[in-house]
Amino acid sequence: MSVTAARGFVASGVAAGVKESGARDLALVAADPAGPVAGAATFTTNLAAAAPVQLSRTHLAASGGRTAAIVLNSGCANAATGAQGMEAARRTAALVAGSLGVGVDEVLVCSTGLIGIHLPLDRIEAGIPDLVAQLGPGREDAAHAAEAILTTDTHAKEVVVERAGFTVGGMAKGAGMIAPNMATMLAVLTTDALVAPDLLAAALRTAVASSFNELTVDGCTSTNDTVAVLASGQGDAVEPDDLVEALTAACQDLAFQLAEDAEGTTRVVRVRVAGARTGDDARRAARTVAESNLVKTSLYGADPYWGRVVSELGASGAAFDLDLVRVCYGPTLVFAEGLEVPHDRGTVASYLAAPVVEIVCDLGLGSGDATVLSTDLGPGYIEENMRTS
Amino acid sequence: MSVTAARGFVASGVAAGVKESGARDLALVAADPAGPVAGAATFTTNLAAAAPVQLSRTHLAASGGRTAAIVLNSGCANAATGAQGMEAARRTAALVAGSLGVGVDEVLVCSTGLIGIHLPLDRIEAGIPDLVAQLGPGREDAAHAAEAILTTDTHAKEVVVERAGFTVGGMAKGAGMIAPNMATMLAVLTTDALVAPDLLAAALRTAVASSFNELTVDGCTSTNDTVAVLASGQGDAVEPDDLVEALTAACQDLAFQLAEDAEGTTRVVRVRVAGARTGDDARRAARTVAESNLVKTSLYGADPYWGRVVSELGASGAAFDLDLVRVCYGPTLVFAEGLEVPHDRGTVASYLAAPVVEIVCDLGLGSGDATVLSTDLGPGYIEENMRTS
Repeated sequence: MSVTAARGFVASGVAAGVKESGARDLALVAADPAGPVAGAATFTTNLAAAAPVQLSRTHLAASGGRTAAIVLNSGCANAATGAQGMEAARRTAALVAGSLGVGVDEVLVCSTGLIGIHLPLDRIEAGIPDLVAQLGPGREDAAHAAEAILTTDTHAKEVVVERAGFTVGGMAKGAGMIAPNMATMLAVLTTDALVAPDLLAAALRTAVASSFNELTVDGCTSTNDTVAVLASGQGDAVEPDDLVEALTAACQDLAFQLAEDAEGTTRVVRVRVAGARTGDDARRAARTVAESNLVKTSLYGADPYWGRVVSELGASGAAFDLDLVRVCYGPTLVFAEGLEVPHDRGTVASYLAAPVVEIVCDLGLGSGDATVLSTDLGPGYIEENMRTS
Repeated sequence: MSVTAARGFVASGVAAGVKESGARDLALVAADPAGPVAGAATFTTNLAAAAPVQLSRTHLAASGGRTAAIVLNSGCANAATGAQGMEAARRTAALVAGSLGVGVDEVLVCSTGLIGIHLPLDRIEAGIPDLVAQLGPGREDAAHAAEAILTTDTHAKEVVVERAGFTVGGMAKGAGMIAPNMATMLAVLTTDALVAPDLLAAALRTAVASSFNELTVDGCTSTNDTVAVLASGQGDAVEPDDLVEALTAACQDLAFQLAEDAEGTTRVVRVRVAGARTGDDARRAARTVAESNLVKTSLYGADPYWGRVVSELGASGAAFDLDLVRVCYGPTLVFAEGLEVPHDRGTVASYLAAPVVEIVCDLGLGSGDATVLSTDLGPGYIEENMRTS
């Protein structure tokens, strides 16, 4: 299920030999019956965007948001690979398009893995016939696709959201729109809702803004991040708000799964900043706290040192008056009116030792409110990232 | 020597009992003979600035840049301590002023240590007579002061810069204007150059901009960062440019010492970005690379993965064209014209294993040029910061 849970989609995942391990590394999600349906995507803002990102942007623009399939590989980001990299992405799309009998502009391409490595196009080419042959609507087929896009993830991430008259399904690999490793979070969503491409694109933007874009693992924005959605129209016509709600629920579920499985993470933290002068201030302050290595390291140690949180709020650039700030670790108010609020340090330390914790800050200045999902920083992150080979 | 190397200064450092360890924790640097000389300082931009920062700003403004002494304590940041904290800072300045027979506005106060802890004013009060009595111009006296301001530093940092007609001396504790720990870098500089307060202030700003402000350890800006300078005027009158040169040399020397001794650091990295469209773009790009946990972690592993550098440049917000970017690890060009430049990975890995390494990036777009001094990120940083008690 998941990416094939909604009516009108098939998926597959095979081992094409991009990964030396022999694990699955090539995935396909396609409309069924084959042909263009409504498609939309959001991409990384990194100006060093990988070839598949550049190509998919072009294809979506050329097709006017009509998309038949998304082909994804892991094991190679196809980023910083020049003209050869772009040709490899184009050829991948063309081969899939030919096999499915659809236009090349109707195929999107995603890659994830190391930057600066050339895509082994011969292996991709050799794998595509099998990939297309194995397309199916089953739970297993979707699981194969979800498995084929993983890199350092420890398990596949899938989601199904059922709503009256339509379904949203999805898969993702991590671990952050703000990526934790050499490259990339990718997510593919499907829905059988009947919706025009422009409404689908708007709904996706809104859903991503309050899910993947509120997830930060290490503040790094990868070259390959992509969230794509296809809508088969085989279900009911939906109100835009209902589609946004369901897409947001699916994206938030996947974003939480990415945070939980981020490299070296031992706990997930939600940082909420309320009472900011503006929404931008709230986002800036929440992100500064969430991305602070000092805060993240103290979360690894389950250390209730609110001084770091207050300091990061003050350094964030958001409007700030120390005397108005309130900070809670979960249910416990630890700072207010410019001073520590007497509290039991052991209680807070126990709270912080849980797998999911919350820091809630109120700046006392307005109604700006934002939440950022993040992780702690422990030796596991360093272990995973200190060497790429 | 160091902070007493220039004519007209005495210093001392005692154990007042702020630190539970019994180590020196209270320092004084004063003009000799006692009385106001030209003084200037730059402070943290953190809006949660500690009481001593707020007080010292007020004093400098009230005195018009006439300063007789700087009193510093370690073991307590006196930050987020409300009215009581401000009163403690004020009382500390008043006691020193009384002992030296100078105006209270002519005394600056610096604190460093944990946020949210009240300054044990009784111990400070009890320590000040001894602190003043021990003031002396000797190398030992300066060394005691430099020792008394340390927190998690492993050794004292001092500098002397001799120039024709004048001397600049200084001391600092780490490890970053962009602070690595619960609080603070502090630096005190002294010079016998004859210079008016406004010129001194301008020279300090320029010197700090290309030294401490180009040092980033973890991107966190502390509540207490202060760089202060006193000029006794007992040496020659100086040209402003000569003073800037000497102050910059002293600040850069201290900044490098801070980087070398930053918590958990195994190597120092200079990230230079040249060829940026503007100077701001160069600074933004250099800082983004230098502060990237992915880049820092790969430096810990001495891993020559240029893909992370290119990705951070592309994500920095600076104007960027991948095809124009060139990246060197030290002497080795690894990326140009949109592609990896063939190179021996082992050679680069050996280069990256040195205690000081350079990454030089050229964006190929203009003349913007900036260098940022940073450190790697290894388990030592986490070990030092995961628990505060």
